[in-house]
Amino acid sequence: MQATVLYGAGDVRFEDRADPVIVEPTDAVIRLPVTCICGSDLWPYRGIQPVASPAPMGHEYCGFVEEVGRDVTAVKPGQFVIGSFFASDNTCPHCRHGYQTSCQRFEPVVGAQAPRMRVPLAEGTLVATRDVPDTGMIPSLLALSDVMGTGWFAADAADVKPGVTVVVVGDGAVGLLGVLSAKQMGAERIIAMSRHQSRQTIAREFGATDIVTERGDEGVERIKQLTKGVGADSVLECVGTQESMLQAIKATRPGGYVGYVGVPHGVSLDGQQLFFSHVHLHGGPAPVRKYLPKLIDLVFNGTINPGKVFDLVLPLAQVAEGYRAMDERRAIKTLLQP
Amino acid sequence: MQATVLYGAGDVRFEDRADPVIVEPTDAVIRLPVTCICGSDLWPYRGIQPVASPAPMGHEYCGFVEEVGRDVTAVKPGQFVIGSFFASDNTCPHCRHGYQTSCQRFEPVVGAQAPRMRVPLAEGTLVATRDVPDTGMIPSLLALSDVMGTGWFAADAADVKPGVTVVVVGDGAVGLLGVLSAKQMGAERIIAMSRHQSRQTIAREFGATDIVTERGDEGVERIKQLTKGVGADSVLECVGTQESMLQAIKATRPGGYVGYVGVPHGVSLDGQQLFFSHVHLHGGPAPVRKYLPKLIDLVFNGTINPGKVFDLVLPLAQVAEGYRAMDERRAIKTLLQP
Repeated sequence: MQATVLYGAGDVRFEDRADPVIVEPTDAVIRLPVTCICGSDLWPYRGIQPVASPAPMGHEYCGFVEEVGRDVTAVKPGQFVIGSFFASDNTCPHCRHGYQTSCQRFEPVVGAQAPRMRVPLAEGTLVATRDVPDTGMIPSLLALSDVMGTGWFAADAADVKPGVTVVVVGDGAVGLLGVLSAKQMGAERIIAMSRHQSRQTIAREFGATDIVTERGDEGVERIKQLTKGVGADSVLECVGTQESMLQAIKATRPGGYVGYVGVPHGVSLDGQQLFFSHVHLHGGPAPVRKYLPKLIDLVFNGTINPGKVFDLVLPLAQVAEGYRAMDERRAIKTLLQP
Repeated sequence: MQATVLYGAGDVRFEDRADPVIVEPTDAVIRLPVTCICGSDLWPYRGIQPVASPAPMGHEYCGFVEEVGRDVTAVKPGQFVIGSFFASDNTCPHCRHGYQTSCQRFEPVVGAQAPRMRVPLAEGTLVATRDVPDTGMIPSLLALSDVMGTGWFAADAADVKPGVTVVVVGDGAVGLLGVLSAKQMGAERIIAMSRHQSRQTIAREFGATDIVTERGDEGVERIKQLTKGVGADSVLECVGTQESMLQAIKATRPGGYVGYVGVPHGVSLDGQQLFFSHVHLHGGPAPVRKYLPKLIDLVFNGTINPGKVFDLVLPLAQVAEGYRAMDERRAIKTLLQP
C-alpha cells in the first residue's frame, strides 16, 4: 500500500510501505474509509519537534476491522470501530481511574494516514459502534479519535458545568470542539479567542457567545472587562505555547479551572505566579478512550457534529498539500480519502 | 507596647512600637493572649526573601476584641475572635467563591507578634467563637489562623476523601496538620515524608500510617513501592522548594491531585513534564476564612487538637530565641506569651 511518511521539516512523502499485519496477539488491523491530519502533526512538520528517522504519520482513525489477533475478543472483523491516539489496555490501575493515556502498557498509535493500519492493544483501545454508520457520519466519528475527545477533556478538566463562564484559548480544531464540548456541558457563556473569520463562524455555530480577537495580556484584559473584573470560571487552553498558557491562567478567576490540552512546547511556569493565581490546573494527553462510548452516542443520535471542523477534503495521495494548507492556516483540518 | 520587628536576615528585635488604634472604620483592635512564629517568617529571617525596611512581624492571631470601627457589627468588644493571615471583605466575588485570600480588597495582616494588634476588614475577616474558650484550647484556636487552615486547604486542594492514599511532603507544622486534615477527611493511608524523630511521632499521633525518610527521586521511588507502582491519589506539598514540588508531582498517580501550600521559592515547572504527569494541581495562600467556622467547631468539640504543633513556649520578649529555635529546627513551632 501507499502511506504517509515524514522525513523532516516540511518533507511529507506518500510512498510504498508494507501492508500492516497482526504482530502481537493483541493487535487488530483495520481499513480506514477516511483519515486526517492533526494540528499536533504540525510540530514535527514545522521542525519544532525533531524527526530522528522517517516517521509513518497519523494517529486519528476509525474504520472496519479486517483481522484481529487471537487475544482480541471485544471486536470482530466487519465491525466499525474507533480508537484513541494512544493505545491502552483499559484494565491497569491508571486506566481504571480514567487515565488511559497514562496506561501502564501504553503504546503510541502511528501510521493512520494510510488506507489500512495496525492497532496495538486492540481489546482495550477500540470501541465498536452498534451499527455500521452512514457515510455522512464517518467524519464526525473520526473526529472523536483525537480532536473531539481532546476538546471534551479540556472542558472536563476545566470543570465546565451548567451556568459557568468559559474561555477557550485557541481556534484550531481542538479549540473549536472545546467550544462544542463546553456548550454540551451547559456553559452559559462561552468566549472564544480567535482572529480568523472562518473559525469564528464555526465557533459561533458550536455555541460561542462572544469572540475576543486580542491576545496575550490584551486578551486577558478584554476577558476581565467581559466578566466584570472577575475572570472566567473555566478556561480551555488548546494551543501549548508559553503565551497561550499564561493567557489561560491569567484569564481564570481565583479558584477557577484551567484545562490544558495543547502539548506544551517551551512552556515554563513560575511557581509563585501560579500559586498566587489560585487556579486549578489539569490537563495532559486526553483520555479519549474514556469518553468514546458517550461521544459515539452523541454523534449517532445527532446531538453533535464534530466533523464540521474538516474544511478541506483531499485524496490521501495529496496528503502533502493537506499539511501545507494546515501549516499556512488555509485549512482548519484536512480530511483525507484513501 | 513592645512588639517584634525584623530588621534584616537574622535580626529580630523586640522593641517599642505605637499601640494599635482604629485607623479605618472597618478595623478592629484585639488583645492577643498568645501569639506565635510561622514557618513562612523564616523566609525573610533567613534572607531568602529580602526585607526592604524594618517589618513588624506576625500574621497568626486570635484573641479578645477591644475596640471596633463604626462599620464593624459582626464582632463586639469582649468577644473571642480568630482571623486569617490575610484580611478579606468576605463579600466580593472571589470571597463568595471561597477564595478569600484572593479578595478584591485583600490586605495583609501584620504585627501579630505583639500584645495587641489592628485587624483590617474586621467584619469579613474575624470569626467569633460562641463562648470564651478555656485557656487550654487557645493554642489550638491560634493554629487555625494559619497553619491548621493551610494544612486543611492542602488536603482539600488535593481532593482527599474517604479511602484514598495520601502523601504529605514536608514535616513542618503545616505538613503535620495536613496529616491531621487528611485523617479527618477519611484518608485510609497517610504517608508522611519526614526525617525527624520528634516530627514523625506527631505525624503518627495525627494519623500517619507510614513514614518515608527518603527525599527527592529516592523518596518518589519509595512511594511507588508502597503503592504497588501506582503512586498516591492525593499529595500535599507543604514546603515550597523545587525539590519538594517535583517530589510531590512525581509521587502522584496520573489523574491524582497535588495540593500545594508551601509558598514557592525558586520553583519553575516544565510544561511538558507537568502535562505528561497527568496530575491535578491546585494551591495558593489558603482561604482560611472559609474553613474557620468548621475548624472552630472541631476544636471546641475536642475532635482536633492542632495546638500540639507548638513544642516550644517562650515569653514574647524572647521572640528572637523563638526564631532561632525554629531556624535551627530545634522547634517545630514557637508559642509566645505576651
